[in-house]
Order: sequence, then structure tokens, then C-alpha cells
Amino acid sequence: MTACMLVDGVAAAQVSVLDRGLAYGDGLFESIRLVGTVAPLWSRHMQRLAEGCVRLRIPAPDPAQLWHEALQVSRGMPASVLRITVTRGPGERGYALPASPQPTRVVAAFAPPPVAAEAYAQGVRLRVCNIQLAEQPLLAGIKHLNRLEQVLARAEWNDPAIAEGVLLDSHGRVISATMANLFALVDDEWLTPSLDRCGVAGVARAEVLAACPQARIGELTLVALRGASEVFLSSSVRGILPVRSLDERSYAPGTMTRQLQQHWRDLGFSMEQGG
Amino acid sequence: MTACMLVDGVAAAQVSVLDRGLAYGDGLFESIRLVGTVAPLWSRHMQRLAEGCVRLRIPAPDPAQLWHEALQVSRGMPASVLRITVTRGPGERGYALPASPQPTRVVAAFAPPPVAAEAYAQGVRLRVCNIQLAEQPLLAGIKHLNRLEQVLARAEWNDPAIAEGVLLDSHGRVISATMANLFALVDDEWLTPSLDRCGVAGVARAEVLAACPQARIGELTLVALRGASEVFLSSSVRGILPVRSLDERSYAPGTMTRQLQQHWRDLGFSMEQGG
Repeated sequence: MTACMLVDGVAAAQVSVLDRGLAYGDGLFESIRLVGTVAPLWSRHMQRLAEGCVRLRIPAPDPAQLWHEALQVSRGMPASVLRITVTRGPGERGYALPASPQPTRVVAAFAPPPVAAEAYAQGVRLRVCNIQLAEQPLLAGIKHLNRLEQVLARAEWNDPAIAEGVLLDSHGRVISATMANLFALVDDEWLTPSLDRCGVAGVARAEVLAACPQARIGELTLVALRGASEVFLSSSVRGILPVRSLDERSYAPGTMTRQLQQHWRDLGFSMEQGG
Repeated sequence: MTACMLVDGVAAAQVSVLDRGLAYGDGLFESIRLVGTVAPLWSRHMQRLAEGCVRLRIPAPDPAQLWHEALQVSRGMPASVLRITVTRGPGERGYALPASPQPTRVVAAFAPPPVAAEAYAQGVRLRVCNIQLAEQPLLAGIKHLNRLEQVLARAEWNDPAIAEGVLLDSHGRVISATMANLFALVDDEWLTPSLDRCGVAGVARAEVLAACPQARIGELTLVALRGASEVFLSSSVRGILPVRSLDERSYAPGTMTRQLQQHWRDLGFSMEQGG
């Protein structure tokens, strides 16, 4: 718990019990990788946060103010992960929107999670989760605070050798990992699942799609994923992670995965993160 | 904001920014009507909270301790609504469950929401919401903190003449109102929707089902609801509310609704709440 935190711009470690973020998960968050005082994907994070605010009808925070606060909380940290949380703010009991919402803004910096160099070099092991994501188009894509499905999914396994779980929707379509998006080379075509009905549209996914115009958003079945010739995960916090196995199926990191790891280094992420 | 509050047994108005209740909506709550120092449905609330804790794998709080704290926060209030919130407690970044969870317990008392006497006598007006509830059997029934769907549903209308919105699932089946359960008399049979795939199983609904063994849990289509001869809402906070209209369709409060309002009074709820 060595985070440095600001709540509405003031050094604080607490929020009101009446905050709707706590009461209903009524808000949004971003997890942002910083390298010193640079956040290579900052504008994509701000774009997704703004879209989430529109979707949830929460007044959007000022990105310049958030950046100022990001620099404050991460001061002196060579690398950090910023968590920005924006909620609809305090409210009385009941679901109705407050007439004059006063959003709460939390900016906190954490030490980056340790990722073994081997994970970037040889890849990570995945399993398929039992939980199936519910389909709610009105909440799909944005990074809101209603994350019980991800909590339950991550609670399905303890084996530290398994880095991530693959999440399917109720029709058995592959959606993502629990905290990363997923790309697969299927029949010589790069595919990442559509996130119109569930899942979170990651900023790293957006960066991959921009860097690889040949990658396509579409439907990815579990059978197709198992048959893929190359698979990687994209995460704003962890970067590009090759997938070495999914349950009994093995994959080898290929050209595209290595090119994207290089792209991540070119963006300014550290060697360690980029692979 | 005139609530009296205890956080983990201590008078406080704030929780940690790192609490997983705020970070992920990783917790549960109960809204409990108190009449002086009596909570007629207390044991049903404790039963649902315990079931939610099992489902989410959160160590359950001690009901005796909660009751002690409930009396503390509601002291001097002739009537109140208690909100008990139980979260998985503080956590580091990431969805994985903490190895040694320290759940957070918030007990707060609020003034009851004003309900016009006319609402109990003549009934309330409903509309059908546009949002369709997503189906997640692993979260259905329990009163968890992931409530963005209800927030979006309640944000669909501003007309103060409309008291509630009817929520459907993605198959068009009626599930509930935004903050109450729903019963309808269809072809001489009392029906309340099954909540196995979405919705919250209200404690007032459980009390109604216990008091009316002839009521059946089943599928309720919107067509059947529109064609019903009698409809009422059940709420642990508001009691039994007749429904006088759903969009253009009108209903008249009937015998069962009046009997249940009397049952609510017999349980010890005030005349005002019971009707």
C-alpha cells in the first residue's frame, strides 16, 4: 500500500462512504503505465475515459488537471502504474442521478506489477475461464467500476504458472483475458474480438489496431483460438505478452508479436516492459 | 447527508481509496427498513447477505455485531432506512482475491424516503425501461455493488409522476422494477419473475412468497404483464405498492394487494408504509 494518492486534488487516502462509486460502482477508471514523466498511451486513455463519461453521463474531468496530478503522485518513481478513478460523486440513497453531480476524482500511483522477463520472451500460459461474460451493450467497451465478473474469473485459479484466463461470452465467443485484450492469427488473418456486447476495449488494443491495419475486429470462437498459429495479449500496464499455451495447446511467439514488442519500445516503454 | 455512520464499528464517514468496493464494486449491500428499534425483515436480510458472501467468497460479518451497530446508528430515529455495505476490503491493484481479506463493514442510517399516502392507496405509475438486463447467473439474485444497470435504467426518465421502471432481460422477459420486485395476477395466477439469470431477489419478495403460497415463480412476458388484472411492487424499504398503470395500461389495486399491505402492518411496519 505504498501508493501516493490525491482525491479531488488533495492528498488523501479516503473517499466518502456516500460516494456512488462505492455504493453502486457508479464510475470509471483507467490504469496507465508511466515511464518516468512520460505516459506513451495517455491520449488514448483520456479518449476512453471521456467516452465512458459520455456513456454514463458523468461530467468529464479535465485531462490537463489529471496530468498535473499524475505527475504529482508519481514524482520520484522511475516507473509506475497510475490508477485514475472518476465516480459520479456523493449521492443520497437511491439510483436516481443527483441533480448537480460533483464527480470524485482519485489519482494514485503504484509500483508496476512484476513481470518476469521470460513472460515477454517465451510467453505466458492461459486457461479458459468457466464464467461467461454477460452481454450488456450499454456498458460494453468502457472501463467502468462494475468488475465483479473479472473478480470471479480471476478467483477461478491459484496456480502462479497460469498468468491469465480467457473469457467467453454466453454464446461461447472469445472476448478477452481478465485484464488484457487478445489477438490471434487465424488462417493467416489477425483477429481481435468485437467488444460491442461485453468486454473492455483496451487502449493497448487500440494502439495495436492502429499499428497493424491488417488486424481485423471480428468473431473469434474458442475452436479458432485453439487452432491459431500465434496469439498475444495486449495490456496498457504489461504491454505485449506472447501466449505460449492455452490449456493443452501450445503456441510459439511469431513475427507480429515481436514487431509489436518493438513498437512498444519505440513508444518509449522500457525494455523490461516491451520484452 | 444527515446519516449517522459506522465504518468497521467506528464512527467515520470515509473508506479507503484502496477498498475493492470502490475499485471494482466488489461487495454487497442491504437496505433495511427500521421502525424504531425493530427491523421486521432483519433475518431475511441477514440470510441474503450471508448467501451473497458465500457466492462472492467474502468472509461474512457477524449478524449480532451488525444489529448492535444498526441500533447505534439509528438511535433516536423513529423510522429509518439502514444501509449495510460489506466489501472485500482494501486490496492492491488487480482482480486477484487478497490472500487474507479484511472485509469492510459500513452501517449507516438514513431518513426513510418520502412516499405519498396516495401511492399506497391508489398505486404508482410505471414505465417500461429501454435498457435490458444482462444475464449473469453467477451474480443473479444477490444484492451486489455492481449496479450500473439500475443507475442507467433510473436515468431514463425524469417525470416525477412515474415512480418506477419495469426492467426486461435481453429476451424481453419481465424481471423486476429498478428498486423493487414485481408480482402480477395473470389468468387467475399470481406470478413473480424468476431471478436465476438477472435481477435481485428482494427480501420483501421472499416475505410475499412465504405469505402467499399460491404465488408462483415463473416466466412473465411483457404481454402477460400488460394483460394482468392486478399488479404490485414489493420493496423492503417501501413495502407493498399497488401499480395503477404501466404506460397506457391501467390497473386497479385488488384483494391480494390490500391483504399484503395488511400483512406488512401486522409485521410491525408503520401505517404510512403499509398503506
